[in-house]
Amino acid sequence: MKSADLCPRFETGMELLSKRWNGFIIFRLLEGSQRFSELESSLPISGRLLSERLKELEAAGITTRTVYPDTPVRIEYELTEKGRALRPVITSIKEWAEKWVNSEELDSMNQ
Amino acid sequence: MKSADLCPRFETGMELLSKRWNGFIIFRLLEGSQRFSELESSLPISGRLLSERLKELEAAGITTRTVYPDTPVRIEYELTEKGRALRPVITSIKEWAEKWVNSEELDSMNQ
Repeated sequence: MKSADLCPRFETGMELLSKRWNGFIIFRLLEGSQRFSELESSLPISGRLLSERLKELEAAGITTRTVYPDTPVRIEYELTEKGRALRPVITSIKEWAEKWVNSEELDSMNQ
Repeated sequence: MKSADLCPRFETGMELLSKRWNGFIIFRLLEGSQRFSELESSLPISGRLLSERLKELEAAGITTRTVYPDTPVRIEYELTEKGRALRPVITSIKEWAEKWVNSEELDSMNQ
């Protein structure tokens, strides 16, 4: 196996972060717990895809889903300790991007 | 546009890192410049895919490609200043993964 000398833990971490929208969902939840509808309105993805990603993040031990028996029922998502431990990762990506992503790149993204 | 309040620079940074194998290529190049064949033998991907990723990373200003007129010709890839500035990102992912990715997750990846 050619990947034998790659750190398999790093590989698992990269897999998680490299799944599209996971970084943004974690970014949002670092601000505090959120209802599904709050997450949905802050991200440019469908409710279905968001729901899928949240299930995967829950399965990976990154987020929890709590149902509060209010009327109507309130469902909140928040980061676990493992999820909150991603703060330095998200912060370092943010700092790098603020310093190094130039306006040309932003323009080409908006096309 | 629903994503209006997402930081567009963070979005561009995440796009770059979330493209599969980019993290690993940068991880490798943080150790120093590498020939194409060295990168190829350290990653579990085809030469064609590696070449594609390296072209994209070069276009994004993350890597450079230098041709040395030896016999046979020697081509080396290395990180630019913008690329080397990703060290804290890669390091924080590595540290998070070492602490938080558990053996069950590693087992499920190997299946």
